[in-house]
Amino acid sequence: MRPRTAVCLLVRPWQHLIHKYSTPPSDFGARRNLHRIMEKGAKIQPAKRVAGKRQDVWTIVNEAAAASPKQPIVNMGQGFFGYNPPPFIINAAKQALDKVDCNQYSPTKGRPRLKKAIADAYSPLWGRKLNPDTEVTITTGANEGMLSAFMGFIEEGDEVIIFEPFFDQYISNIEMPGGKIVYVPLHPPPQGATENTSAAEWTIDFEELERAITNRTKMIVINTPHNPIGKVFSRDELLNIANLCIKNNIIILSDEVYDRLYYVPFTRVATLSPEIERLTLTVGSAGKNFYATGWRVGWLIGPPDLITYVAGAHTRICYTTVSPLQEAAAVGFEQADAENFWETTKTEMKGKMDSFNEIWKELDLPFSDPEGGYFVLVNMKKVKIPADYPFPDHVKDRPRDFKLSWFLIQEVGVAAIPPTEFYTDANAHIGEDWLRFAVCKEDDVLEQAKERLRDLKEYIE
Amino acid sequence: MRPRTAVCLLVRPWQHLIHKYSTPPSDFGARRNLHRIMEKGAKIQPAKRVAGKRQDVWTIVNEAAAASPKQPIVNMGQGFFGYNPPPFIINAAKQALDKVDCNQYSPTKGRPRLKKAIADAYSPLWGRKLNPDTEVTITTGANEGMLSAFMGFIEEGDEVIIFEPFFDQYISNIEMPGGKIVYVPLHPPPQGATENTSAAEWTIDFEELERAITNRTKMIVINTPHNPIGKVFSRDELLNIANLCIKNNIIILSDEVYDRLYYVPFTRVATLSPEIERLTLTVGSAGKNFYATGWRVGWLIGPPDLITYVAGAHTRICYTTVSPLQEAAAVGFEQADAENFWETTKTEMKGKMDSFNEIWKELDLPFSDPEGGYFVLVNMKKVKIPADYPFPDHVKDRPRDFKLSWFLIQEVGVAAIPPTEFYTDANAHIGEDWLRFAVCKEDDVLEQAKERLRDLKEYIE
Repeated sequence: MRPRTAVCLLVRPWQHLIHKYSTPPSDFGARRNLHRIMEKGAKIQPAKRVAGKRQDVWTIVNEAAAASPKQPIVNMGQGFFGYNPPPFIINAAKQALDKVDCNQYSPTKGRPRLKKAIADAYSPLWGRKLNPDTEVTITTGANEGMLSAFMGFIEEGDEVIIFEPFFDQYISNIEMPGGKIVYVPLHPPPQGATENTSAAEWTIDFEELERAITNRTKMIVINTPHNPIGKVFSRDELLNIANLCIKNNIIILSDEVYDRLYYVPFTRVATLSPEIERLTLTVGSAGKNFYATGWRVGWLIGPPDLITYVAGAHTRICYTTVSPLQEAAAVGFEQADAENFWETTKTEMKGKMDSFNEIWKELDLPFSDPEGGYFVLVNMKKVKIPADYPFPDHVKDRPRDFKLSWFLIQEVGVAAIPPTEFYTDANAHIGEDWLRFAVCKEDDVLEQAKERLRDLKEYIE
Repeated sequence: MRPRTAVCLLVRPWQHLIHKYSTPPSDFGARRNLHRIMEKGAKIQPAKRVAGKRQDVWTIVNEAAAASPKQPIVNMGQGFFGYNPPPFIINAAKQALDKVDCNQYSPTKGRPRLKKAIADAYSPLWGRKLNPDTEVTITTGANEGMLSAFMGFIEEGDEVIIFEPFFDQYISNIEMPGGKIVYVPLHPPPQGATENTSAAEWTIDFEELERAITNRTKMIVINTPHNPIGKVFSRDELLNIANLCIKNNIIILSDEVYDRLYYVPFTRVATLSPEIERLTLTVGSAGKNFYATGWRVGWLIGPPDLITYVAGAHTRICYTTVSPLQEAAAVGFEQADAENFWETTKTEMKGKMDSFNEIWKELDLPFSDPEGGYFVLVNMKKVKIPADYPFPDHVKDRPRDFKLSWFLIQEVGVAAIPPTEFYTDANAHIGEDWLRFAVCKEDDVLEQAKERLRDLKEYIE
């Protein structure tokens, strides 16, 4: 360490004195000195949007996993893949790296090849030809894509409706442009704690939804297949939501990042009618589609007069998106059908899901059978944590699911995500008995997880 | 095209009627119908932050280049490289693509290997050991890194001082969190139109700078080596700026993305004193360092109590940064010295710069000799554009440099950037005779550019 001056070293130890001596201390010389130091060393205040958040679930779970006595932990927490994209996509990325223009800035709206590949891939699903230049825009992952949508339309005080549980990043993404979040809960099946249920049984109370709409409601977020529930919104549910949006001129932001992983019929809200389509932005993710959550390539599909502002916001946020991996994602779409990739990805994931969920039947723990995606919610009401079990401070004040997660990491060596992180405090009780497991892992890892989870038996009534 | 309903088709043609019939039209049936359509089809308003901007310089220049009769255009406009990163870095990227964890989410603050490589590379330049976990954070390019810094500290109404000319993305990045921009001009050498000058001769009026500081001033942006001027701020200039910042507790955001390209001694403001360092965030770019502007990997170095909020903002904006290219950038830093990369990059770029600038001596056009970076500003006051030369509408109302840029693209086939895009309207006159050329291109491309620029001779007095 380079030696620092005394002035700099003294800033912190002295700061508490300011509050202590609200009346002047007797030694005025020292006080003048203190002032000088404080003036020079006054603490820089962060913006409120980043200040004072409690520890996020990912940090808690990852740190707990790293510190657990059961090493190596089987990490079924975060939804990253335990395997690589298929060779035809990895090879496309490598080939792109050899081309000069594939390593330099892409156009802010995305590389023409990727926009065309997406338009070509989704046109049959939309039932009409999508225009790659006006109806598709590339973003730095779906996450920044959603932020771009909010930044493109939300003014201070505008309201955005989201369903609980929600993907946690929605919150900061809506709040950054000054949006107010209005929460509408998805209601779990009442028998979810005692018997296996379907993700379809998590339901919307449409009167509740309608009551949540005000004249400040600018957008609503749909997430289908849903994280963490695994629900695929039915055609009727989507029509009911969309009709409310038409009536009230609300933009539908449909987060469909798990759009290639559905095990029941999947409806894309944008395709229901032209009147719905003109209000709908559909979000997709190369990371989720191609097993590469670290690639940060996403996109939005929508009508030109909405897409143009999403692209405008994206330009102001990230300027442009990673070039060689856009190129690889383009090849992914171009060759997916010939490689039978979409069918394979669905069959394989459904196989992982069903095989893993055998363990819950064995343990007699009810789970919510997902209709899509790679997460399963398991109800752990029956798991009895010993009364004197020690929890660290940042866990013991959180709902029961945080304790369950901690307990499983420590005692069984399997990491899962407590879903109350995806709820407001008021509704956290809905999720407090559930844990979310990600099954996008190698088969032998899933088998290892099942083996470890058998140790839970002694804690189940 | 899937047929759209009449309702949808009619929305636009009817809308103007609303204004036309401010009194009720006689046909009330039609009016009711119109209301129904308007209610359903009311135009969605974008947020002010993305609405109604004039066409940006990149679009104007790129579209002009694409439409020019002189094909192919030699594009010296945008600062992307005309060549690839060196093989040891490309190979590292390819190797990363083969590793599962290198394709999945990285930690939000960046991959440990890259943070360590950056800390190791910059510790000798800082004169002390940097802590990779608390003093370095990775961002999605320097651009999103700067946005993260503004989002981390700027509240509505806080002021940020930037020097003119400025990198254009600063503007939206400061305005997004509600910051107010206060401009302080860099004053060009008065003889810049008649003789060759040095980028060092663009100067700060320190009284002017001090007058710009108010009690709302939260941050100041320095850019050294400077884009577009190529100025390397001297140690004395940096000390003068930094002392004002200490006095007024202002965060220094030092954009040093061209930090490996300096042709005079280069001072990093963070290293001037511990008191300055505790206020300084230094921004770097793998894209600029390693010839890969499309990789979107950047970083900030700074004191832990500032870095933590930059990282917090970055998490909320992009969540995390592209994984395999972080790994490649890490290898870039790890092996740069052994490969003699930093020396090579500097020598090669200086060679390109000097060789290209021969053309201005030949044409007797004065230029501002850069002290760093890869841009050169050339004064074109002597170039006489024919009085009746036709310009499109979006060019003819802009300052003279936009016309010069258009004229060169059309008549000579070389694209350069009009720098008044980097000025406020009030100060645009300072830049209206200059054009910015990027020399980060293959040598034969630079030779071709020189050959074409010889055609300018007939327009020079």
